[in-house]
Amino acid sequence: MAGFDIKTIVGENYGGEQKDFIAALADEISRSIEDKYSALFKSSYPLIPVGVSNRHIHLTEKTFKKLFGQDAKFEEMRPLYQPGEFASKHTLTIVGSKLRAIEKVRILGPLRKYDQVEISLTDSIYLGLNPPVTNSGSLDTAAPITLVGPKSSVFLERGAIIANRHIHMTSGDALVLGVKNGDYCKVRIAGIKSTIFENVLIRINDNWRLQMHLDTDDANAAFIKGEVYAEYLGKM
Amino acid sequence: MAGFDIKTIVGENYGGEQKDFIAALADEISRSIEDKYSALFKSSYPLIPVGVSNRHIHLTEKTFKKLFGQDAKFEEMRPLYQPGEFASKHTLTIVGSKLRAIEKVRILGPLRKYDQVEISLTDSIYLGLNPPVTNSGSLDTAAPITLVGPKSSVFLERGAIIANRHIHMTSGDALVLGVKNGDYCKVRIAGIKSTIFENVLIRINDNWRLQMHLDTDDANAAFIKGEVYAEYLGKM
Repeated sequence: MAGFDIKTIVGENYGGEQKDFIAALADEISRSIEDKYSALFKSSYPLIPVGVSNRHIHLTEKTFKKLFGQDAKFEEMRPLYQPGEFASKHTLTIVGSKLRAIEKVRILGPLRKYDQVEISLTDSIYLGLNPPVTNSGSLDTAAPITLVGPKSSVFLERGAIIANRHIHMTSGDALVLGVKNGDYCKVRIAGIKSTIFENVLIRINDNWRLQMHLDTDDANAAFIKGEVYAEYLGKM
Repeated sequence: MAGFDIKTIVGENYGGEQKDFIAALADEISRSIEDKYSALFKSSYPLIPVGVSNRHIHLTEKTFKKLFGQDAKFEEMRPLYQPGEFASKHTLTIVGSKLRAIEKVRILGPLRKYDQVEISLTDSIYLGLNPPVTNSGSLDTAAPITLVGPKSSVFLERGAIIANRHIHMTSGDALVLGVKNGDYCKVRIAGIKSTIFENVLIRINDNWRLQMHLDTDDANAAFIKGEVYAEYLGKM
């Protein structure tokens, strides 16, 4: 039998006179499907495309309207690698507790259910902030930050985070890598400053494409320039 | 015998009637010394203090005088971790090919036989430079950069590098770790963004103290804050 016992599916008394034929047919179907897909699980060196996330902003529609005006239209500049996501035409100036500013920080689309600024530790030190390393959308301990737009500004009491290292993937990718949503893993970037990143969160959604997201500190530490692939090394 | 054969040192015909006594004495001396030192080599988890190098400048005396005036005195502000090295009281503004400047870049002492600016890849991108990842003092492929001081400025045709990850150590530390000068190794920094740094150069000098030097990109990627130790993982 090809990986299963037909009796466990249909009970002991299946098929009558055609019992042997049915068992052989089940075997054949199983074998042909297994042949097609099993190679997927034999990849011992899967490479993962790497995307570098520069500092960026997510906004609610309400906050966007406040900063850009009630009649402002939220417009796409260019699509991102993940289907449906895009860099918008809009940027803001962000200001932290040292009263230093970083200008032209881009807002990504689509608009979301929360306001969030994702920065690197390098940015945090410059701005004088102490944001947590956390998942996108986990804002309980996020740092205070001011957003300045052309029509108004807002002070977010809990707005700034350092996004953790994570890999977007489909449930098929997860099967290949042997991981589940919420697992943490290690990946390696080769090169003159080759680096193994630990505590990389697995995030699964069948609308996504396989891609690891690193911030600019991680990317610059590993001397990533241009198109780079990471080697998956296993779970933590 | 304790690790050696006395005959190989003094020949076959040593000691005459006192041969047995001499052999026993040699054994005893050897054993007592081995007992004292051999534990050193059993450390399987040696921790290495980590020092983070912010962008900085090394100058020759000639260039210092040009930038600060012929009568200027090169003065210490505070000592660094490595014996004899110090942060000076003097800073410069550096300017790259995008004509952007980074202000207040500190000169380290003592003065050296070459002019060199050590920056991170983050700095390089901001300045518009393409410096190599290389050893301090290896300036063959260094990037052009301008230094601006209070009395003059200089254009260094080959001045800017990204210093490679390295560990300063004594020959004793090298014995403990089982490495030699010029080897490359891996080390791990634990924490929320735990990271394994590869291609870390071993540099040996008995005037130094054991310390790994990382630049601010590496340090911020691993979320290093305050006093941190790295775990030695072995040679590359």
